Amino acid sequence: MENLQFGVDYYPEHWDEERWSIDLSMMKEMGITVVRLAEFSWSALEPAEGAFSFEWLAKVLDLCAAFDLKVVLGTPTAAPPAWVIEKMPDIQPMASDGARRYFGGRHHDCQSHPGYREQIKQYVTAFASHFGAHPQVIGWQVDNELGNSHGDLCYCSYCEAAFRQWLEGKYGTIEAVNQNWGTTFWSQDYQSFTQIHAPKNTASGQNPSRALDWQLFHSDLINEFHSFQAQIIREHSPNRFITHNLMGFSNVVNYHDLAKQLEFVSHDQYLEGYWRNYEKDKVEENYGTKRAFAAAELDFIRSIKKAGFWIMEQQSSISGWDILGRTPKPGEISLWSVQSVAHGADTIVYFRWRSCKMGTEQYWHGILPHSGIPGRSYFEIKTLIQKIKPLMKEVKGILPKPKVAIVHSYAQHYAMQIQPHHPDLNYLDHLYTYYRELYQRNIAVDFVQELEDWSPYQLVIAPLQYLMSPEQAQHYTNFVEKGGHLVVTMRTGVKERNNLCLIDQALPGDLSAVFGVEVHEYDCLRDVDVQVQLEGEIFTGSKWADILTPTSAEVIATYASEFYAKEAAITVHSYGKGKAYYVGTELDRELMHRFMNQLADVLPETLVTPPGVEIISRENEQVSYYFVMNHQNKDQAITIPEDWEAYYPEQDRNMISANQYQVYKKMK
Amino acid sequence: MENLQFGVDYYPEHWDEERWSIDLSMMKEMGITVVRLAEFSWSALEPAEGAFSFEWLAKVLDLCAAFDLKVVLGTPTAAPPAWVIEKMPDIQPMASDGARRYFGGRHHDCQSHPGYREQIKQYVTAFASHFGAHPQVIGWQVDNELGNSHGDLCYCSYCEAAFRQWLEGKYGTIEAVNQNWGTTFWSQDYQSFTQIHAPKNTASGQNPSRALDWQLFHSDLINEFHSFQAQIIREHSPNRFITHNLMGFSNVVNYHDLAKQLEFVSHDQYLEGYWRNYEKDKVEENYGTKRAFAAAELDFIRSIKKAGFWIMEQQSSISGWDILGRTPKPGEISLWSVQSVAHGADTIVYFRWRSCKMGTEQYWHGILPHSGIPGRSYFEIKTLIQKIKPLMKEVKGILPKPKVAIVHSYAQHYAMQIQPHHPDLNYLDHLYTYYRELYQRNIAVDFVQELEDWSPYQLVIAPLQYLMSPEQAQHYTNFVEKGGHLVVTMRTGVKERNNLCLIDQALPGDLSAVFGVEVHEYDCLRDVDVQVQLEGEIFTGSKWADILTPTSAEVIATYASEFYAKEAAITVHSYGKGKAYYVGTELDRELMHRFMNQLADVLPETLVTPPGVEIISRENEQVSYYFVMNHQNKDQAITIPEDWEAYYPEQDRNMISANQYQVYKKMK
Amino acid sequence: MENLQFGVDYYPEHWDEERWSIDLSMMKEMGITVVRLAEFSWSALEPAEGAFSFEWLAKVLDLCAAFDLKVVLGTPTAAPPAWVIEKMPDIQPMASDGARRYFGGRHHDCQSHPGYREQIKQYVTAFASHFGAHPQVIGWQVDNELGNSHGDLCYCSYCEAAFRQWLEGKYGTIEAVNQNWGTTFWSQDYQSFTQIHAPKNTASGQNPSRALDWQLFHSDLINEFHSFQAQIIREHSPNRFITHNLMGFSNVVNYHDLAKQLEFVSHDQYLEGYWRNYEKDKVEENYGTKRAFAAAELDFIRSIKKAGFWIMEQQSSISGWDILGRTPKPGEISLWSVQSVAHGADTIVYFRWRSCKMGTEQYWHGILPHSGIPGRSYFEIKTLIQKIKPLMKEVKGILPKPKVAIVHSYAQHYAMQIQPHHPDLNYLDHLYTYYRELYQRNIAVDFVQELEDWSPYQLVIAPLQYLMSPEQAQHYTNFVEKGGHLVVTMRTGVKERNNLCLIDQALPGDLSAVFGVEVHEYDCLRDVDVQVQLEGEIFTGSKWADILTPTSAEVIATYASEFYAKEAAITVHSYGKGKAYYVGTELDRELMHRFMNQLADVLPETLVTPPGVEIISRENEQVSYYFVMNHQNKDQAITIPEDWEAYYPEQDRNMISANQYQVYKKMK
Repeated sequence: MENLQFGVDYYPEHWDEERWSIDLSMMKEMGITVVRLAEFSWSALEPAEGAFSFEWLAKVLDLCAAFDLKVVLGTPTAAPPAWVIEKMPDIQPMASDGARRYFGGRHHDCQSHPGYREQIKQYVTAFASHFGAHPQVIGWQVDNELGNSHGDLCYCSYCEAAFRQWLEGKYGTIEAVNQNWGTTFWSQDYQSFTQIHAPKNTASGQNPSRALDWQLFHSDLINEFHSFQAQIIREHSPNRFITHNLMGFSNVVNYHDLAKQLEFVSHDQYLEGYWRNYEKDKVEENYGTKRAFAAAELDFIRSIKKAGFWIMEQQSSISGWDILGRTPKPGEISLWSVQSVAHGADTIVYFRWRSCKMGTEQYWHGILPHSGIPGRSYFEIKTLIQKIKPLMKEVKGILPKPKVAIVHSYAQHYAMQIQPHHPDLNYLDHLYTYYRELYQRNIAVDFVQELEDWSPYQLVIAPLQYLMSPEQAQHYTNFVEKGGHLVVTMRTGVKERNNLCLIDQALPGDLSAVFGVEVHEYDCLRDVDVQVQLEGEIFTGSKWADILTPTSAEVIATYASEFYAKEAAITVHSYGKGKAYYVGTELDRELMHRFMNQLADVLPETLVTPPGVEIISRENEQVSYYFVMNHQNKDQAITIPEDWEAYYPEQDRNMISANQYQVYKKMK
Repeated sequence: MENLQFGVDYYPEHWDEERWSIDLSMMKEMGITVVRLAEFSWSALEPAEGAFSFEWLAKVLDLCAAFDLKVVLGTPTAAPPAWVIEKMPDIQPMASDGARRYFGGRHHDCQSHPGYREQIKQYVTAFASHFGAHPQVIGWQVDNELGNSHGDLCYCSYCEAAFRQWLEGKYGTIEAVNQNWGTTFWSQDYQSFTQIHAPKNTASGQNPSRALDWQLFHSDLINEFHSFQAQIIREHSPNRFITHNLMGFSNVVNYHDLAKQLEFVSHDQYLEGYWRNYEKDKVEENYGTKRAFAAAELDFIRSIKKAGFWIMEQQSSISGWDILGRTPKPGEISLWSVQSVAHGADTIVYFRWRSCKMGTEQYWHGILPHSGIPGRSYFEIKTLIQKIKPLMKEVKGILPKPKVAIVHSYAQHYAMQIQPHHPDLNYLDHLYTYYRELYQRNIAVDFVQELEDWSPYQLVIAPLQYLMSPEQAQHYTNFVEKGGHLVVTMRTGVKERNNLCLIDQALPGDLSAVFGVEVHEYDCLRDVDVQVQLEGEIFTGSKWADILTPTSAEVIATYASEFYAKEAAITVHSYGKGKAYYVGTELDRELMHRFMNQLADVLPETLVTPPGVEIISRENEQVSYYFVMNHQNKDQAITIPEDWEAYYPEQDRNMISANQYQVYKKMK
Repeated sequence: MENLQFGVDYYPEHWDEERWSIDLSMMKEMGITVVRLAEFSWSALEPAEGAFSFEWLAKVLDLCAAFDLKVVLGTPTAAPPAWVIEKMPDIQPMASDGARRYFGGRHHDCQSHPGYREQIKQYVTAFASHFGAHPQVIGWQVDNELGNSHGDLCYCSYCEAAFRQWLEGKYGTIEAVNQNWGTTFWSQDYQSFTQIHAPKNTASGQNPSRALDWQLFHSDLINEFHSFQAQIIREHSPNRFITHNLMGFSNVVNYHDLAKQLEFVSHDQYLEGYWRNYEKDKVEENYGTKRAFAAAELDFIRSIKKAGFWIMEQQSSISGWDILGRTPKPGEISLWSVQSVAHGADTIVYFRWRSCKMGTEQYWHGILPHSGIPGRSYFEIKTLIQKIKPLMKEVKGILPKPKVAIVHSYAQHYAMQIQPHHPDLNYLDHLYTYYRELYQRNIAVDFVQELEDWSPYQLVIAPLQYLMSPEQAQHYTNFVEKGGHLVVTMRTGVKERNNLCLIDQALPGDLSAVFGVEVHEYDCLRDVDVQVQLEGEIFTGSKWADILTPTSAEVIATYASEFYAKEAAITVHSYGKGKAYYVGTELDRELMHRFMNQLADVLPETLVTPPGVEIISRENEQVSYYFVMNHQNKDQAITIPEDWEAYYPEQDRNMISANQYQVYKKMK
């Protein structure tokens, strides 16, 4: 594939035809080389059933050719037109309360509906065969942000039928379903698959195993929905890539499964999105970790394929729907783009070219404002492109090389959502406590799956290993045995993969030997924190306390309050050539820092920077490119090693301005 | 129409017939001269379809004649009886989630339903022809508080059909709908009106233009529902007035449209209603502005027809449904009544005569308690009537004469509800920041519409002029050109009237010339305030910041924090013979005060009073009547000018007691 | 019935058959003598319609015989199996919004459904005739926690039909319904019973009288549902008891009515349930009243039959569903058990034997953890059993003998839920302010019904006597006349029993003479407290203020703020041989304490203990057994009278350890 660095999301159908060449020439002039088109354009391209209206898009593609802009085409199945709804009102999805969600926004579709599938097939076949071989078209995106707005949809009878079929495929017999769902409890045994329904609202309680399978099914359904379209595209548009605009840690769809269908993954990033918790943001900013979560999402996206990726939608101005987020500060849009590149992005596509006159997203501003008059976003991005494009060509194929990994698992995330244990216990927040500490130390991180090969890593952190299979326990054991350092946290091994509890063994089950501990008791820290003593000082644990009984482990920290004061809170156990750590509670920032000091031996050496200044490198055996980024809204002192060569001559090696970046290069 | 000062809302059907003459004689003895009857009495007057039972009401009317009480009759369409529901269950309204709202309260009706319309026609025809010519009957009220409890109702198929018809009337073609709704966004184009539905809950997002039209339609529907009944009444009850009990700034129905059908408007006022935000009230009380919003509502009501009005329901005791508000303090009921008169009320009708034994409103207390034993309310109101009736006769036809106006617009209110921008940004609250400052200065205010003749005013304040038509911009321009002073605030001119964004021009569009500013950027102040510097001091702006680029305007205030510190926050521009002010953010109390000082030239001179002491006058060319009201719960010092003649001899010109009023007269 | 002290709730169907005898022998070894079985086992016992599978349970019963364990059997109608739902989907209950609640949890049933009744009849007949005569079976439980999860269910057409029939039974004619519901208000009159529906969601407001009848109906329906099953059981299983596991003050079902069907009542107690308000708990703990509410529930349960009772489910470890509560501290499980015994429990059944592998309640831990390895709970309970069993045999039939009673009424509770008046006014919380003060004084309390014989008591406290019938007023009058001391509180006598307001009389109606006061005015204390002066000191009242006008009563306390400062807040009136107290507001802790000092003459003498140390005795004419319990998490000093004989020799008469109990015996 060509070396493309910058793109925009463009909606020519929103603008008069006369404007198109003005827009495209302005893009060209900025340094844009790729545009994404048509992912919400169904009604413009098929205004009535079978009456395809492809001419206008063909003109746009020809204009793209004239301006040497490459094109990524989307399929518009996130927005079926009114005529589809009129024909098949029951594709409007059903929520868990049994009520429909109606036409008028987007994602008003049931992805199981056979009639809807047929409609999609007609559209995508016509569309892909019409444009699939166009020389400007280099790739495809199916639908948009699959899983978005579809959190708990759809519960309709088509989805129930698909769920039954999925269960039959997974379990074979109804007896096996009963076994794996523990239906004996509360008399929930099924005699046949026909008795199974979607987990709609109950009078009281849900079966956690059914709930987990529903989530797994839902992810599979959406992936199959993607595959259904991807096959048509591949048939009619050979030698083009298919990618998808993922949404970081969003978990409706298992992105590992989806990525198998893709040449590379993409990510949508809105760091001042209207949905932000601005109160929480302030706390993070005070600690200098405001953009640590953004970094985590970029690392996660890169980790999916352990390869470079695209940002398919990068925020380019103030954005929102009915409510808006804050406007980016000067320098921030560039800084976000550079952070994406630093963590492995090869191409940055800005959403969107120009703020739209109409619809739900009329305040999701683009590079150009509604007025069309180039302003701060335009000039900042244009400057960025000119400055960083050569560097991006240079680092293409060179990526961060972490020695530390954090385990991320969709199933664990689902299971903890189904049973959060503590009202504030959240799978991602808990993972993030580890990531944040590593981020502040400028230590690069990969995210890995549970059964992936962990041998590239010296240290693997596996938080909340709630669901545990024998194979998985063996994998963890082998890693430690061969010299790996492994950290697990509270609630490890509590469940089988079917969300049934482990019985007949002390926790953490088969892993007790590796960690040298048993867990016989635990406390849910409702409206109370627990004190934790480490090296004679008192810190704080929260939300949950596994009370550890070391069998052969050493105690690193003990509880210092509650009736289990003096019991172990954190332990370490040498096992084989490695070490295994068990952390019984959620650690506050200071305690996390002190705990991580214990792991110093296996942490890579990195530069110490002031809070909010991030350094990450893209490197290979010959060279390292260091990206230094100041996410704080004030200038900060830095000390760049002498053997780092400034990539841009104007850089000040002792100071980095507010919201600015620097790049250094070092030959090995 | 006769000169009637005081009335009560009376429900004889709730009481034994023997009680009626006792009640009426007590009313008479108090000074009551008018009673409102029958606006919830359908099942008592038509207990079964077509079986009218008018005798009891006829008896009441005859008794009213005996006691010389005039009567306003209501139609009971806010409470269709059980037999109507049994006959047509689908008049029970449908909410936006598709679920019905059932019988058992009130307003359980769909106002589009043809069968229900027919039922109403039968009732109102029979009722109006039976009682329409009765000599006691002086006027009518259709339904009750139209729009109340109907905020987002009804979404049923009849309403959808009516919506389609309304759209066809407004736009003519489906192409025009698509154009004005911007349906190209997210593939929402319609091929025919039949594809259009009510904006029920979606999976994700709403079309803001559809949402605005739905609100406008809804207002029109309710007004047409009123007109449908009013026509029958006018046919059968000639020479009687029709009025309606409005609810201040409630915005489901456009009261300007409704008022065209009415001889005069009325207002329902419950200043200690159970729904109050008592925490917010405390803050207002501390600043002495507890009753400023009540004053604003009275001014708004008077401004609708720029004429005297009735209070159709004035709170007369503690009130509530399942939850109650506070009981009025001694003096408050009188003070509320006097405040109403001061702002232009000609007649005060108290809700209700006696606390009801039964139903949802059994704790919505009346002048008499449940016991029937006259108490504090009875004696306070009786005293008030005797004291103020002569004055009310004297001031009839004389009204406040404001030189300052605030623009109020239903469409702007709807549009800001649909897209509040900031979680706490509220159209009425924003307007109120201006009103409150004027109130504290004892400056009388009219509310005006956008396209109304503003020539009577020296100063017009037009907050949040979000929707802007060319005609409207021209109107604003002309006003300034001819010497008017005009204040607009943030987000002015952002939208066309169809809720599509203005494009191809810098904001505020055509108004840039008048205001001498352009707005290229703005910030949404999420969880943060912005500092504003005016005359060297620092104040606070909140929620939103338009960053102003003066082209020819002068800068009054600048931002003093964020990256746009030193950019303009408030500007003034001399244009033609007038001045145009642009205020870029929501001002705190102190900043508002300082800003208003800038407008001193065009503010009328008024008396300075301590916080909580309000003065407003009803005046004509010969005379001014000054109403001095102490809304604070403590005595306060005042200084009444020597040339103001005390209306009541017992008044202390240097002190006004807690919750008391005084009246002065001055010949010009 | 045999003298059984300890039991467990056991679910053999959750475990392999091989485990059964291990479990039963472990129980036996602990001292367990009774097990509850099968109350959620429908699908295991009737896997398909009519295909009964009783063999496994028969084996369990035989094993129970082998281990000398008695058995209580449950009917499983709280969990109809999937095949029942498949056959009759419309037994899935309908919520007030018209949406169903679906299969997947429990209580997914409509208790009116005739087809479901038939299904139950088949099951219970087969089950009871199969096992009813088994020698191990000593008793029965119908369904489980009737009323749980069914708070506002079901509103389906079967329930509506049952409601109509119930109304016809209660009122005879539709005219009487109209009369008692006050349907004239808002035109709600009914012409026939067919027009009556369940009180589903309305657009605006509910009829409070309909709402009250709906609650009363619902309780009756559930009691009739119980009776329907109980009759079958009694026919097929003669000479066995039927009990039911009640839930303290839960009010969906009137437990007095239910208890008439039972040999004795049982109670389920989870003092660290996941639903607790831990913030509120902290406040209670600071005052030493953390377990006062638990004591109140135990007293209430004992009071239902004024007899000994069972705890059918006593918490035995950490518990929860998706969210967990805190784990019990060492000693707490024993302490909870002893508190139950102290207040009158004869038998303690622990929920559950072993933590379940599966389902909604997999974290509702049992005596054994999932691992099956005996831990803290097991050993603590085993020790308790051995220590306390002899005492329990000794005190059997001896109960607390309170001289003070608090009136509790389901109807008052319903009526205050329907109209709470103040957002924070809560019937149980208000009652609890009185209970708590008595608890802190170690004064034993009975709960009594309104029309019960109160002659055993010197003092009766009757809070919130909102609904009042003439018969009830007479009963209260008689009690005082004959020498009783009676305390009533605000809002007394406001309503007739049909939830219509009292009219034509000053409040509290007929009771004015007894209390020597009238109430003509009141205030709802929204966001404000009122000061109350008693004996020259200032205290605080909250939520509501009845302004008392003494006719012949003496004033104990006056208001000291608001416009009614100096008006009476608390009064006492000597009437006949007794005294009648009227308390006009909700008292804070200190004011309650000072008020209760006024009643010293009629309060029994008790030992003063530090906060959190509770003493209650079970006594008869010969002997008193004093249970001393330290509910604080710290050791506390006590002073045990010399004539109290230590029941356990190791007890320290001057100190009681954290979370520990002591027992003393005194011969009279």
